[in-house]
Formats: sequence, C-alpha cells, structure tokens
Amino acid sequence: MSPFTGSARRTTEWKHLKVDEDDGVVTVTLARPDRLNALTFGAYADLRDLLGELSREKSARALVLAGEGRAFCSGGDVEEIIGATLAMDTGRLLDFNRMTGQVVRAVREAPFPVVAAVHGAAAGAGAVLALAADFRVADPTARFAFLFTRVGLSGGDMGAAYLLPRVVGLGHATRILMLGEPVRAPEAERIGLISQLTDEGTADEAARTLARRLADGPALAHAQTKALLTAELDLPLSGAVELDAATQALLMHGADYTEFHAAYRDRRPPRWQGR
Amino acid sequence: MSPFTGSARRTTEWKHLKVDEDDGVVTVTLARPDRLNALTFGAYADLRDLLGELSREKSARALVLAGEGRAFCSGGDVEEIIGATLAMDTGRLLDFNRMTGQVVRAVREAPFPVVAAVHGAAAGAGAVLALAADFRVADPTARFAFLFTRVGLSGGDMGAAYLLPRVVGLGHATRILMLGEPVRAPEAERIGLISQLTDEGTADEAARTLARRLADGPALAHAQTKALLTAELDLPLSGAVELDAATQALLMHGADYTEFHAAYRDRRPPRWQGR
Amino acid sequence: MSPFTGSARRTTEWKHLKVDEDDGVVTVTLARPDRLNALTFGAYADLRDLLGELSREKSARALVLAGEGRAFCSGGDVEEIIGATLAMDTGRLLDFNRMTGQVVRAVREAPFPVVAAVHGAAAGAGAVLALAADFRVADPTARFAFLFTRVGLSGGDMGAAYLLPRVVGLGHATRILMLGEPVRAPEAERIGLISQLTDEGTADEAARTLARRLADGPALAHAQTKALLTAELDLPLSGAVELDAATQALLMHGADYTEFHAAYRDRRPPRWQGR
Repeated sequence: MSPFTGSARRTTEWKHLKVDEDDGVVTVTLARPDRLNALTFGAYADLRDLLGELSREKSARALVLAGEGRAFCSGGDVEEIIGATLAMDTGRLLDFNRMTGQVVRAVREAPFPVVAAVHGAAAGAGAVLALAADFRVADPTARFAFLFTRVGLSGGDMGAAYLLPRVVGLGHATRILMLGEPVRAPEAERIGLISQLTDEGTADEAARTLARRLADGPALAHAQTKALLTAELDLPLSGAVELDAATQALLMHGADYTEFHAAYRDRRPPRWQGR
Repeated sequence: MSPFTGSARRTTEWKHLKVDEDDGVVTVTLARPDRLNALTFGAYADLRDLLGELSREKSARALVLAGEGRAFCSGGDVEEIIGATLAMDTGRLLDFNRMTGQVVRAVREAPFPVVAAVHGAAAGAGAVLALAADFRVADPTARFAFLFTRVGLSGGDMGAAYLLPRVVGLGHATRILMLGEPVRAPEAERIGLISQLTDEGTADEAARTLARRLADGPALAHAQTKALLTAELDLPLSGAVELDAATQALLMHGADYTEFHAAYRDRRPPRWQGR
Repeated sequence: MSPFTGSARRTTEWKHLKVDEDDGVVTVTLARPDRLNALTFGAYADLRDLLGELSREKSARALVLAGEGRAFCSGGDVEEIIGATLAMDTGRLLDFNRMTGQVVRAVREAPFPVVAAVHGAAAGAGAVLALAADFRVADPTARFAFLFTRVGLSGGDMGAAYLLPRVVGLGHATRILMLGEPVRAPEAERIGLISQLTDEGTADEAARTLARRLADGPALAHAQTKALLTAELDLPLSGAVELDAATQALLMHGADYTEFHAAYRDRRPPRWQGR
C-alpha cells in the first residue's frame, strides 16, 4: 500500500466488473456474457474508479482486461446507453462522454501496463478500450469494429481519433473510423493493431502469462516505459530526449539496475524487485 | 445552401477543372489528359477556390478527385510551373508555394470526406493531393512518386513531410521523400498508402461508389470523424479526449443518432439525414 | 569549409571512432569488434562532438554509420558503462544520459542524411543509434534489440520512446520497448524499421552506395527534406505547410532547381551542385 493514501477508502465490491488480484496482477473481467459484455453506465464508472484506485494504491504491477463468454466487449449497450442518452440534456451528455474518455485516459496513464485479452467482438467502446491498452493479445476470432458512425456518431470517440492513427497510421485509421467496418484478426495483425496473435481460445491465458511476466520483471522499468511512450506522443524531440535522460538517471539509482549488474557479474538471473 | 452566405457569389464556371455535382457528391476531374493532368497555376487556384466555396456552401457531402486519361496527375507542369517560377522574385515564389499548401489544407479541413481515385502516375503535387485525401482508392497501375528532390526541391512540399510520416511511418516516409522513387501499388498497399485496391480500370467507379455511400450515410458523423482525425494529429491526448466528448455530446442531440435508435427498435435500416 | 567558423579547431584525431571522408561522404565506424562495438563514454562523446563539428563545417553531404566485425553495435558496455554508472551521483548520471540523448539529437538535426549500415546485433544504444538514422540499410543478419528494460531501465532511452512509435506505430513500439525482445530482419522489414534489405554481408557497401548517391545528388534538397521531416513531426499541419512553402521558395532560387530545368530542356542529366 502506498504511503500516499489519505482518507479515501478502497472499494471492496465492484458491482459491474469482476476483479481478481494475484500478487500484483489484477484481472478485470467484463462479465455480462448474455449481452456480449455490453457496457453500462455502471461499468464505465467502475472502470474509471477502479483504475483510479489501482493507480494510487500501487499494488498492481500489471492488469489484464478480458471479457467473459463469446466476445471481448460489444460496446455501449444499445438500450441502456443509447436509449438513455436520447433523453439527456447537454450537460448530462457531456458528463457521460467525459466519463468514457476518462476511462481511456486512466488506461493510458495508469502506472502499470494494461494487457487486453481479445476474442470475438471488440466493438464500439470495446474496440477503444482494447486500443487504449498497451498490449492487445488476441486470438483468430478477434474482430475490432469502431462502429460509431454506424449509429450516427463521430468515429472519434474516447480518444480513438487520437490513438488509432498513432497505432496503424492515418490512412488505415481514416478508413476504419469513417466506415466502421470490422477489422478481423489477419488484417489487425498486418496493420499493427494486434500485439500478439494466439491460438484460438488461448488469448486470456496468453494475456495472463504476459501480465505475470511484466509484473515479476523490472516492473518500475516497465511502468516508466509506458509513461514515456504515453508522454512522448505529445512531446517534441527535445523534450522527449530530456525526459528520457531524467528517467534513466532516476532508474540508475534504482534497485533493479544494481541487481542486473550484480546478477550479470555472478552469471545468474536477476531477482527483480520492481523498484 | 448555408445561411452563412454573404455577398460572395458562387463561381459558375471552373476553367481549369471539370466539376460535377450529383446530390451531394462533387466530382472534380483533372482534365488535361494530353499532359497527364499536369497542374498549372490556374488549376491550383481553382482547387483552392473550389474547395473554399464547397466548404462554405455545405452542399457537398463527399468529394471525388479523379484524373482523366492515362494518369491521375503528373504534378506541376515542367514548362508552365517550373519554367515560370525561375523568373519569379521571392515574394511571388512564396505566394505560389503558399497557394499549393492552401490546396492541401483545404482538402484536410474541408467539412466532407475527399476520395482520391488513383490510376497511373500520381507524381509530385499529384502525389501530395492524393496523400491529403481521406481515402486513396487505387487500381494496380497506381504509382505514387514524391519526386521533388529529383528537380532540386525539398521532399517536404505542400505538407508532404507532415502527412507522409503520419500515414506510412517515418522510415518509409524518409526513404520515399528523400529518394523520390515511385511507390507502386503493391508496396503502397502494404505500407498503408492505399485505402482500397480495386481491379484495373475501376478506381474511378469504386471511388464514386464510396463517395455516394459516405454522402448517403450519416454525413455529419463522417464529416466530424474527418475533422477529429485532422485536429487530433495536432492535439495531446487530454485535448483529444475532451474534443471527442464535446463532439459526441453534440451529435447525440442530432437527428441521425435518434434515427439509428428508432430504426434499431423497429428492426429496419436507418434513414440518414446527415445531421 | 563554412565561413561561419570561429576559433574552435577541428578535431584531427578521433580516439574512439574510425572516421573517413571521401568527397562529402563521411564514414563513421564503431571499431571495437572484440566487444561487438560496445559503446564507451569516449565513443558517445566522440559521436556527439564529431556530429557537431560536421554540422558546422558543412563539408559532409552524407554520413554512413557502420560497425566493424560481427555486429553493428551491442550498446553500452556492461562493465565500462553500467558498472561505472552505479558509482555516479545524480548530477553525473544526468550528464551521462543527456550526452547519449545529445548524440541522437545530433543525428536527427545534422544537416545531411545519415545512413546506418546494420548487420548482426544493433542492441540497446546501438538500436537507438540505428533508429535515429534517416536510413537503415540492413542485411538478413540484422537484429534490433531495445533491451533497456532487461537491465532494469526504461525502454525510453535516447529518444527511443519518441522515435520508435513514429517509425513503426505505437502498438509495435510498446511491445518492442517494454519487452526488450530482438526484432529480426524479416519482422523489422515488415513493420518499416528497415529502409533497405540487402544480401548478407553487403549492408556496408549498399549504405556507401546510397550515401554516395545522396551526396552527389541535389544535396541541399536532401538536407532540407531531412530537416523538414524532423521538424514537422513536432509541428501542426498549419505550421508544416508554411515551413514547406518557405523552404520551396528558398530552393527555387537555388542552383540545382535552375540546373534541373536547363537539363530537362536540353534532354541531358542534371549536374547537381548541392546548393
């Protein structure tokens, strides 16, 4: 537990998500399989709040985001979200759309890597959640569909128009966001949208293995790598190089760097402490 | 016609371009086939002015940019442009180069998607025009040649050094802009420079079909998707997420979002109004 | 020699690098083959200083960066760098990490193209040096390993977290920098990390041929293309288009542009002067 903890209490029961912790690896499962894990207001809010708590607690060293049943996540629920937003006034609509964006920012800014385990549909907000993760471990059934224009909305939802061109290039991103057509696993792998393609039915297991490896390795180095990748998309070369220099100087006083050198000298594997 | 129309009259005759309108789809054809549609001062100026008029009029919902004859566009005419610029003073040279850049900005900032239909050579300024479009629908004869260094100029012309790395990555972009070698259709498709590869001789038809689909669909959603893709290349994540939130809140009060929900409930296809 | 030369003397002997000049092509060879060209403090400092001198002198029109023996460069020497940094205080660590970042900035900001000739390992700082070059000419033995996290450091070293996402996209870059696994030639070519793949054992020769072509061509146009690619990664579209316009106006008063037109008219190859 971080010393930088105040009066706010940890949430002990997440009503809209399944949350498991296992020695630094947190697994968050979207678990409404009868609705292909369609998101509700509560699920968005829980994702925002859970990521916020994990980010301040410092107990998570890696996180897996998975979906139960036949799909990863079919996006915002047509009845519970689209239907409900039709009755909202402007302020409420802004609140909703800011909340979904906060989930994406929380994923990108969390001080630990996030691994999305994708099988079946990752549609709408589900596709953006996967896109915001650091790794997309996917099996051949995976299908990313940024189908926002299909419901009359902008393809730029929750940061998708920022993130997708930086992952697959502006040409592919324009086509995918404008037309809302599904990107199936072979194309997704070819254009760089999948980080690791697994055998069918093994994406969850592969994602957990990767998260375990990240958590048991030099976890502070992994966290800083993520932080720099996130920050340097928005920095000029000069600022990026200075940020890298300050970060490495910091980590060179860290336990894991010293341990690497000792292990190298002793010809044994390093015992990483993640600090 | 937009109510935001003042005293400026619509241009009724474009001398340097063929312009056709068909229910929201504007087709602009470079039509100097004996010169492979080489651009002249007049053609650049007409492109700048036409895109400006269409952007303020709001009658276009999609635009096709095509070339007549054996090529899409061979770029600036050697005699009428290179020859003429040799006699220009500094201020005039700046005027010319700003005009060509304004064409690219007008393509990127137009409130409707632009589909380039490419066959044969897209060379020099012709390659940048295609690059600036939202979609490049191309047939196997397409060949993109950013040959600026071959005439002693910078590969960064009309925004090419900004756009190309964001479409194909910095490594490919450096090679392509520095060496000026042609990128043929198979490579162009592989690196993400082509949005849709068609059978030989059918790029124009496929581009019109795509533009028709974009115009007849939720056209305001398409326009906003384009606007966000353009803007968010230049925004940090925080600003991008906020822009997405404001845009979606706006579109959730739009006719097409309501129509989607009604159509979904009634199990019928939506009747899009583009607003 | 540039007239913008003051009292500072040219370094006549580089102790930590082999440096050859041949009519505008400078070849810099990392030459500690028994250590796979592992970098030392002296080698970093010499790279920083050499690139600075060449940038102000204006005698180089292209530069080849190569490695002697079985590898391109295995990165920072474990004993001479990692061991030594363990004893350094904060200020000294910042000095070291800023120096390595200055090498990358010097490569990106040099007023001439830099061609990395890669065979065997390009590891750690060696991978970033290759990444910072304008061209990576590599043979099938090439293997890029950004293995910083493997020693407990951030994958963002010397600007890698800025450059790699802009070359191969954020998805691949996250995987490569976070996990530190080697990227072998076939994958490197597929994702755009290799500019030109050569036959085994011929990367050096191909890199020299490319550098010779760049130096003997319109070298000022090449230098400006590089400068714009570097600058426009950090500019918005509006600024990029204005920079392109000013640059082209400038080059249109240059000797090579006039020469291109004369050669075209006379149906002969241009005689480039590089200005």
